[in-house]
Parts: sequence; C-alpha cells; structure tokens
Amino acid sequence: MTATAALSAFVVTYPQVADGPARRLAREGIADAMAGLLSGWDDIAVRRVLAALSALYNGDVALVGRSVGLPAPEAALVNGTAAHALDFDDNYGPLAGHASAVLVPALLALGEARERTMRDLVDAYIVGLEAMRFVGDGVSRTQYRLGWHTTATVGVIGVAAACARLLRLGADSAHQAIALSTSLAAGSKKQFGTMAKPLHAGLAARGGVMAALLAEAGVTAAEEPLAGPWGYGALYTGQPGGIDFQASIDLLAAVRQGQAPLAIETHGLKLKLHPCCASSHAAIDLMLDLQREHGFSVGDVDSIEAIVREVSLRNLMYDAPTDPMQARFSMQYALAATLLGDGRLRLGDFTDAAVSRPEIAALMPRIAMRVHEPESPIAASTQAVEPAQMVIRLADGRVLAGTRFNQRGLLIEPLNAEDHAAKLRDCLAGTPFAARQADIAAGLADLDSPRPIRSFARLMAG
Amino acid sequence: MTATAALSAFVVTYPQVADGPARRLAREGIADAMAGLLSGWDDIAVRRVLAALSALYNGDVALVGRSVGLPAPEAALVNGTAAHALDFDDNYGPLAGHASAVLVPALLALGEARERTMRDLVDAYIVGLEAMRFVGDGVSRTQYRLGWHTTATVGVIGVAAACARLLRLGADSAHQAIALSTSLAAGSKKQFGTMAKPLHAGLAARGGVMAALLAEAGVTAAEEPLAGPWGYGALYTGQPGGIDFQASIDLLAAVRQGQAPLAIETHGLKLKLHPCCASSHAAIDLMLDLQREHGFSVGDVDSIEAIVREVSLRNLMYDAPTDPMQARFSMQYALAATLLGDGRLRLGDFTDAAVSRPEIAALMPRIAMRVHEPESPIAASTQAVEPAQMVIRLADGRVLAGTRFNQRGLLIEPLNAEDHAAKLRDCLAGTPFAARQADIAAGLADLDSPRPIRSFARLMAG
Repeated sequence: MTATAALSAFVVTYPQVADGPARRLAREGIADAMAGLLSGWDDIAVRRVLAALSALYNGDVALVGRSVGLPAPEAALVNGTAAHALDFDDNYGPLAGHASAVLVPALLALGEARERTMRDLVDAYIVGLEAMRFVGDGVSRTQYRLGWHTTATVGVIGVAAACARLLRLGADSAHQAIALSTSLAAGSKKQFGTMAKPLHAGLAARGGVMAALLAEAGVTAAEEPLAGPWGYGALYTGQPGGIDFQASIDLLAAVRQGQAPLAIETHGLKLKLHPCCASSHAAIDLMLDLQREHGFSVGDVDSIEAIVREVSLRNLMYDAPTDPMQARFSMQYALAATLLGDGRLRLGDFTDAAVSRPEIAALMPRIAMRVHEPESPIAASTQAVEPAQMVIRLADGRVLAGTRFNQRGLLIEPLNAEDHAAKLRDCLAGTPFAARQADIAAGLADLDSPRPIRSFARLMAG
Repeated sequence: MTATAALSAFVVTYPQVADGPARRLAREGIADAMAGLLSGWDDIAVRRVLAALSALYNGDVALVGRSVGLPAPEAALVNGTAAHALDFDDNYGPLAGHASAVLVPALLALGEARERTMRDLVDAYIVGLEAMRFVGDGVSRTQYRLGWHTTATVGVIGVAAACARLLRLGADSAHQAIALSTSLAAGSKKQFGTMAKPLHAGLAARGGVMAALLAEAGVTAAEEPLAGPWGYGALYTGQPGGIDFQASIDLLAAVRQGQAPLAIETHGLKLKLHPCCASSHAAIDLMLDLQREHGFSVGDVDSIEAIVREVSLRNLMYDAPTDPMQARFSMQYALAATLLGDGRLRLGDFTDAAVSRPEIAALMPRIAMRVHEPESPIAASTQAVEPAQMVIRLADGRVLAGTRFNQRGLLIEPLNAEDHAAKLRDCLAGTPFAARQADIAAGLADLDSPRPIRSFARLMAG
C-alpha cells in the first residue's frame, strides 16, 4: 500500500473518536487555539489581509471579531492569520510547528459552511493531527533545518486530511485532496519577523480547505504524491530518492487496530503559558518555581543566570530588545518582565510601552544567559527538548539554584484549569470580547457538543 | 543591491515598453495564448475547478466561454487552468515551462478588475517575462531536474511582478509582492498526466494576482526572499547556501540602460504548431519538409525512423498509445497522425476516436524512434534544444533523409500569419467560438490597443 493510499483510507474509515484522553486533549487544544485567535483577531497583519480580501469577496462564514463574513476558504485564511499573529498558539512535535492555528480555523470555516457540528470538528481535528504525524515524522525536522516553515508546508497536508474527514469524502476523493494539497505547500522561515509568518498559517488553512473542495468536485492529482523521486518528501527534504513512509504506514495501521495510541495522546500539544518564544519557557517556569519556594521579590535580586541548550540560546537572539517583536525572542526581557509582574507573563508585556519601561532597562543587564557545561544534567537528558538551569544570587547573599527539564504546558506537565482560565482572560483583555468573557468561557468549556459550528462561531464574531 | 530590490525597482521604473520587436513578440505570444485558452475553455479539469469555485464565489471578472464571472483571483485560476489544459500553449526557455498560460490569464483578470487597457497588459506581460528570466536563469533547470513544475514554482514570481506592474505599485509594494509570491510557489512534476498539471498554471496565475493584492494592502514579507540560506533559491534547488543572483542583477541593469535586449527578444516564446509534446515537433516538421520536397503520400511509405536526443526519447514514452493523453507523448502517433492528415496535426487528432483509428494502428509499427549516434550532427550542435534526424524508406525504393535543428515556432523560425490563423481555426473548431471566428481574429490582431481589457475579455466570454 502506498503512503497516500494508507493515509486516505485511515482518514475516511477510522471510527468516530470516542470520548477519552484523545478527545480531552483535543478539546484543550481547540480551546487554547480559540484563545489565541481571540487575542490576535485585530493584529495589523489580519487587518491588512482582510482589507485585501474584503475588496474581492463576500460570504457568510464567520470571522473572529467581525460582523462581516467571507467564503469558507477566505475565512480560514483570515482566522488562520489571526490565530498565529501573536505566536501564543501551540506547538506540535511531529509538525515541528504550529498545528492548531492551521487546523482550527480551517475546520471552523468549512464546518460552518457545511453545517457540521462541534463534535464533527473535534473528530476531524484529531484525524488532522494524526495526518500531520504521518507526514511529519519523516520530514518535519529536515524541512525545518533546511528553512521550510513546516507550519505551512506540512500543515497544509494535515488540514486537507482533516477537511476530507469533515466533508465525509470517499477514499478516492480524500486521496485526491491529500495529493492536491502537496501542490499548495510553500513558505520559508525567511519570512519570520514579518506579516508573512502568521499569513503562512492562514495560507495552510486555506490551502487545505481548497484542496478538499477541489477533490470533492472531482479534480484529480498524482497517485502517489508523497513518496519516491519528485514526490513531496524528495522535493522538501532535498533527498532526490524521496522519503520512505513505511514506518508511518505501519504506525497508522497499529493505531487503526487499536494497538498504538493516537498521535495526540503520545505527543500532545505544547500549549504556551507565556506569550513569547518557547525557548524561554522552561527558564521562566523555573524562576517562578524558585520564587514560590524561596519567597524573594524583584528588589531582592542581585543577578540571574539562565543556562540553556544552544538551540534555545540561538533562538533568543536579543539581549536588549527595543520592540515587542524582539522582546518575544529575549531571555533577558522574559525574565525581567516576569519578575516585575505578578507571577505570569501577559500579552500586555509585549507592547512598545512595556518594552521601554526604565525598570526593565535597569534589570536586564543583571540577567545573563549561557550554554550549559558538557557535564550538566540537562545535557544528559534525552527526553527534555528545551530544558533550563538557573542560578539566582540575592542581595542578602543567598544563592538559589535549580533545574527544569521541561516547560509547563507539555503532556507531562499540563496546564491546569486556572492556567487555562488565566490565559483566556489575558487573551481577551483589551479586546471587545472582554465583556463577553463568561459566555466565551462557557462556550469553550462545552465546545465538544452536538451544537452546530455556526452557533459556536457566532459566539466569537463581532 | 539585493536580488529582490533590483527586480522590484525594475518592475516599477522600467519605461513603458515602446513599439518594436518586444511588443510584436508579446502580441504574438498573447494571441497564441488566447487561442490555447479558447481551445481549453471547457476541458474537464476546467469544468471541475469551476464547479468547486462557483459554489463559493461570485464576481464579474470574465471567464473564457462562460456567461458567469468570478472574482479576479479565481478568474485567473480558471482561465489559467484552461490555457494549459490541452498543452497547446507556449514554452519559455528561462522558465523551463509555460509562461503565457500563467501570465495572460492573471493579467486579463486583474486588468479587467482594475480597468486597465490592453496596452497596459502587453506592457506588464513583457515585464513579467523579464522577471521570469531574472529568477529562472539561476534556478529553472535545476528545479526541473529535481522534479519541480517550474511553470508554477518560477511562474508565480513572474506573475506577481507583472501584476505589481499592472497595479502600478510603488517599489516597496512591488518588493513585498515578489516576496509574498515565494510563499505561494509549489507543484511537482509528479502531477503530470492529471488535472493538477493544468491546475498548476491556474494556481500560479492566481498566486501572483493574490501576492500583488496582499502587497497593495500593506502585507509585509522578507527583505530578501530569493538569495541566501533559507531563501527561495536555496529551498527550490537543494543548495543550502542559496543562489547568487548577481548575473541576473547585472543583466537586468544592462536591460534597464538599453545595453542589452529584453528577455522576450533574446529568448522568444516557443509557440506550438502541433498540439502535442514539443519533443516530437522537430521530427514532425522535418517529415513535412521531406513530404513537400519529395511529394510522397501515406500509401508510399514503407518505414520511418526518427532519430532524436535522449531527452526527447524519454519524454515520448508511448510507442503504442491508447488514449489522447498518451498520444500527446508518442512520436509514433504524432508522425502517423500527421501522415494520415493534410499537412498539420490538429486538436481533433487527440480524441479517443482519433487515437483508436485502425489506420493509425496499422501505421505505427512502421515508425521507429531511437537516440542519435555519438557522431551525429545534432549531437554536435550546442544551439539546438530538441533536434531530429529522419530516414524515410518508400515502397518504390527511395530513401529520404534529413536533419532539423529546431522545430518551427521558435524565434529563429517563427510561425507565419497563415500558421497563426490555422492554429486559431483549429482551436476554435468545435467550440461555441467557431461562429465568432472573424470577430475573435480581428480582436487578437488588434489586441495591443488602448481598449479596456474588459471589452477585450467580453469578446471571449460565453
């Protein structure tokens, strides 16, 4: 069986996902993505994309925060851009990128247009994550290293699979949807730091919707677009012979037979507690752990040293950021702003005014970051992805030290109800949704229901 | 100056192209593309794409052969798919693919929406071809070898540049349009032989239109998306360090200063005289040359041997085709159908009925194809791309032989007025446009005029 045939058969025949860990994790991921979408609804990238599209299209599929609608593919594009605009959305290991910001807007838009329910959406979301693992396991890391923005280039295939599921296509049409989506996979990490970065999430959402709709209308594409020479795997990893998807095929068969867990259960979604680069998160969490344990405040701190892996150090490239975008990629800023706050970083910490606070400028020079020693415990861990050590020297002479192997928000240390609630509050603060917070929280708590997607989406409209 | 800055500055500041060889060649290319578009208007791929889009969108930009319209990006998509559906459209060397099938539908659609004139369209078309050379010179052949469908992956950038010109964007916005278009570059040659192949032309047309419109609305993208690590050149050629565009920058500066001809003047468009794979064209033309010179007919022929380069042999992979799509890639079929006809291959030769003619089946086994000897004159030519030799043995014992270094339709042996007229007649035969042939021919003869694009496009609508 070819890779695409295996994947498309799974997409259409896997039984409706029963209640259990997978659905619970899916609900959390979708609710978290909705919080991110609500926070990014009026970002400048979203406004400009919407300005271009509003001049071209009209439709009745809901846009978060707007009273006007758009056709489903364009609603997916605008909401996808919004969901990734502030980089507060989840990461997903098999994708090496952002899964929910592409899946959720696509499924909301297509599901609203086709009168599906929120339970259908949750089901298709889980299948989409499975498809992302199927494709991503063999290619995501290589693509990411080469410079592809995997959120878009792997994401679009997962969205096409999820949309094929939502449309209840037959196996042949699901096959064509997946094949067509490979002709919509594009986007370089060179676009990071520009509006094109969140736009990539929107384009992947739109592309997956469109691939499914073209396939539904009978547009044909290659028999095996993924494997072999000239295939997706070959073109996007620089390996002319192509990628062998046999391990993915075997794993999917095991999932199908109930002999292996779904991808969402083994990988989980990495939900962000802090609205900045994930490379700083373990250090922020570690500092908060030490603060809780030892009870110091910002005035007590003499110096802080954060010790991380080289990958984290490279991502956090701004020692003294001067604008919010740089601040998102600064260990010094993240720790200083956390110390000056009340135990949690907020979206409000990433504004021009917040970044230019004199107390921030005074504090950052006392915060250092370096790569760990070769014999460090975090060097030895094979499980930890972006762990941190820390040494805090207090003015009273005390020296506090600790190690954190992971950030909060991963499957092994998930966010709790209060974390989710606080993130939602933060995402709504300063938006027109703040006044509707109770309704929105109730809607998110009950999203996995037989209610029509349309009624759920209306809750978030303008 | 970076590659993208050089290209975007050229796009917005190059003077309106004056009457001369470039405009004459552009008129020919556009008229030829329109003939192809008229022939492909109702292909099954087009009907299915249109079915999907009609359910989503409404608009008033004209579709060839339809009374309904669509928004500009979707009109570009449908017409682009139609323009490439029968593979009767031009090739363009610097792209290693089909230029007019992506440029003309995009400029027609955007130009109609923005009330530009046909003179504006011709001007933007020439600039688009120049942009395709700029980008394509360093990457097209490598991409094509790796498996990318360059019509889409290089084409979309050329379309974005042409659309930026048509919209009269400033240099900054043209820069963003080109940068955004790199995030829409996708498509593998694995899709050949499926509806996704012509769809790629439509997607490139749509992508370029959309990139220009997003840029016009202020969406930003990378400063230098083409060169360097992670850049377009790196990702699409498998060279991690990226592509050096300095030769393209220098050549463009020379064009700008009038010290080098425009790309359209040095490369020309390779216009197809026969509605099948270009690899068979030199052999068809050579057989017709020999027939004119020696006056034999199909009944006189004992055997034919066509001798070609290996690249042509590989493209023409069907010795005994059984359907029209295979027949387009068969030397045996092309020569047999030409011999049975009246001196020209026609679109009507590529139908199920035509392919299954018994006289074709009887004739094809007497036609052979092989690769040339190492000492062949066509082996020695560095200029010829797909040359052919031929040996024809007649029943009366005569042996006719010859060599052709190029097919007809290239810049060095352009089609004449009668060729163009015959191609247009063939493209209209059996379509609803046949009854309007005189009007359409007159419109194409006068396309480079100050008339609004809308009035030109209406000529081709349903």
